Amino acid sequence: MQLEFFGTGAGVPGKFRNVSSVALRLLDESNEVWLFDCGEGTQQQMLRSTLKPRKIDKIFITHLHGDHIFGLPGLLSSRSFQGGDEPLVIYGPKGIKDFVQISLRVSQTKLSYKIKFIELTEEGIIVDEPKFYVMAAKLQHKIECWGYRVIEKDHPGELMVDKLRADEIPAGPVYGKLKNGQVVTLPDGRTIDGKNYIGKAQMGRIVTILGDTRNTPNIKKLSQGADIVVHESTFGKGESKLARSYYHSTNIEAAKMAKTSSVSRLLLTHISARYTAKMARELQDQAQEIFANTKVVKDFDFIDVPFNKHEEA
Amino acid sequence: MQLEFFGTGAGVPGKFRNVSSVALRLLDESNEVWLFDCGEGTQQQMLRSTLKPRKIDKIFITHLHGDHIFGLPGLLSSRSFQGGDEPLVIYGPKGIKDFVQISLRVSQTKLSYKIKFIELTEEGIIVDEPKFYVMAAKLQHKIECWGYRVIEKDHPGELMVDKLRADEIPAGPVYGKLKNGQVVTLPDGRTIDGKNYIGKAQMGRIVTILGDTRNTPNIKKLSQGADIVVHESTFGKGESKLARSYYHSTNIEAAKMAKTSSVSRLLLTHISARYTAKMARELQDQAQEIFANTKVVKDFDFIDVPFNKHEEA
Ligand SMILES: [Zn+2]
Ligand SMILES: [Zn+2]
Repeated sequence: MQLEFFGTGAGVPGKFRNVSSVALRLLDESNEVWLFDCGEGTQQQMLRSTLKPRKIDKIFITHLHGDHIFGLPGLLSSRSFQGGDEPLVIYGPKGIKDFVQISLRVSQTKLSYKIKFIELTEEGIIVDEPKFYVMAAKLQHKIECWGYRVIEKDHPGELMVDKLRADEIPAGPVYGKLKNGQVVTLPDGRTIDGKNYIGKAQMGRIVTILGDTRNTPNIKKLSQGADIVVHESTFGKGESKLARSYYHSTNIEAAKMAKTSSVSRLLLTHISARYTAKMARELQDQAQEIFANTKVVKDFDFIDVPFNKHEEA
Repeated sequence: MQLEFFGTGAGVPGKFRNVSSVALRLLDESNEVWLFDCGEGTQQQMLRSTLKPRKIDKIFITHLHGDHIFGLPGLLSSRSFQGGDEPLVIYGPKGIKDFVQISLRVSQTKLSYKIKFIELTEEGIIVDEPKFYVMAAKLQHKIECWGYRVIEKDHPGELMVDKLRADEIPAGPVYGKLKNGQVVTLPDGRTIDGKNYIGKAQMGRIVTILGDTRNTPNIKKLSQGADIVVHESTFGKGESKLARSYYHSTNIEAAKMAKTSSVSRLLLTHISARYTAKMARELQDQAQEIFANTKVVKDFDFIDVPFNKHEEA
C-alpha cells in the first residue's frame, strides 16, 4: 500500500508541480490501483512512473474544478488505447458523468471497457469489498467537494501451525475450528482453546484523502485515527482568514487537526505556485511545530503506508 | 513569424512527444500568437517556452479527436488565471463550442475574457485582417477535419526617399502619389514615374498547417506555393495502404505532395510513439530522397519562416 503523487500543485500547473492527482497503490493487497483526482497532464506524469492507466480500477473525484478533472478524458482514452478492458468505476460529485460522456462523445472516442459512474449523494460507505471499505463525506469548498477515507479491513491472526505440531495436535478439520477461535476436545481427551494458537491480528490501515476544503468538522470525522491523511495546504501560517474566504485551508489548520485526531502521518498537498521550494519547506517546518510527522509532498513522491498498530489476539 | 511546436506525437502522449499543438508566432508582424490544436498538456509544455497562454489571440482546431482538443479547457482557464482579458477567437469544426462550454460549466470556471466561436461550415477565407488571410478547407479524416493556410498579405515596396532627394524632387503631397506608383508632373516641368522610386515589394509568406488526413486533393490546394507546410506523417514508407485505411498519411505521400506543389519547406509531425528517435530520423531520410527540404519536427522545435521570394517593383 503506497501513495504515489502525480500532481501536488494548486489551481494551475506550474514548472515544478502539476495539478492534483494521487494514486493509492493496492497491488500487494488486492492487485488494484485507485486514483484520486485527475488534473490535466496526469497521464503525462504517469509516463515517468511504473504505473499505467490500464492498471487503474477506480477513480475518485473530490470535486469538479478543472485542476482536478481536466486530465480525465485523456487518461480514459489512453487506458483504452493501451488495451485496458477491465471495467472502471468513477466516483464523484454529480456532473462528473456528463463531463466524461460529453468529452468522449465530442471526440468520438470509443472505449474498449465499460465505465460505471457513481455520483455521490449521501455520506457514508460507498465501497465495501473483501479487503477495503471507502467512506465518503462532504467537505466545505466553493463547489460540492468530497473527502475519502479508505479503510483496510483487519487481517485476522494466522493459525500457528508450528506450535500445533509441537504440541502434537494432529492436522484435520479441527484446525479450521481452532482458527475460528473455538474450544475443541481432541480424541485423546485434551481440551484445546483455539485462541492460544492464533497469532497477532493485524489491524487494517486507514488512508484519508481530502479534497479542497476549508476547516469543517467532517475533516476530523474522515481523519480520526488514520495512518495517513492527505490534506490540502493552499495557504500558510497567518493566512487562515484568507484561506477561509477562498474555501481553502492553511498548513496550521491541517496540523492542528492531525494532532487532535490521532493521525499518524500528515501529508500536505495542493501547494500554490506562489510558494518557492524554500517556502514550501517553511510550510512544513511551521506545521511540524504543531504535528511533528508532517511532510509537504512533491510530484512523484512515493509514500509507503506501513502497518502501525498490532492488536493482541 | 515562427512556428513553435508543443506536441508532435500521434494519438496518445509519449515520453518524448506530447500530443498535437503548434503555435504560429506573429509577434513581429501583428503582435499576435495563434495556436493550432491543443492536445492535453499543451499548457504544461508552454511552461518551457517564453509563450504564455495569455498571449494567444486565436486558436484553430483541426478536428475534435481527443489528442487535438483535450488541453483546451485547461489552457483557457490558465489564460484567465494569468489575467488575460483580451477576447479570444476559436475556429474549428461543429462541436468545439459545446465541448468548451460544457467543460467550463461543469468545472464552474468563470473566464476573465470573452470567447468567440467560429464553427466552420464552408471552405474558403475565414480570416481577413490587415496583415493576414486564413483559408480553410476540409481534409479527409475519420471525422470532420480542417486544414489551414495562413497567407501574409504582400508588403508593398518602400518609397526610396534618398533617391528622390538625390534627384532633387521636393517633399510634399507629391511623395504620396509617387508611392502609389502614379506618374506626376513637377512644377519644374519634369515628368516622374513613381515606379522608379519604389523599392522591391516583399511577397507575404504562406504557412499551411494541416490536420490529420489521408491523401486528398485539398492538401495540394492548401499547400500550393507555401513557404512551410506542416503535414502529418503517422505512417512511413511502404505503409500507404495502412495509412489510407486509418485516414492518415505517410512521409512519402507528404514529400511527393510538397515536390509537386512548389512548397519551400516540409515539416512532418504527428509522429507515432512506435517510432524511436532513430526511426523518426529514417522517416526524414526517406522523405528527403523525394523532397530535400523536409524535417521531422520534435517537441519544442522553433522554426523561423523566412521571406523567400522577392518581386521586382
Ligand atoms: Zn484545486
Ligand atoms: Zn491525431
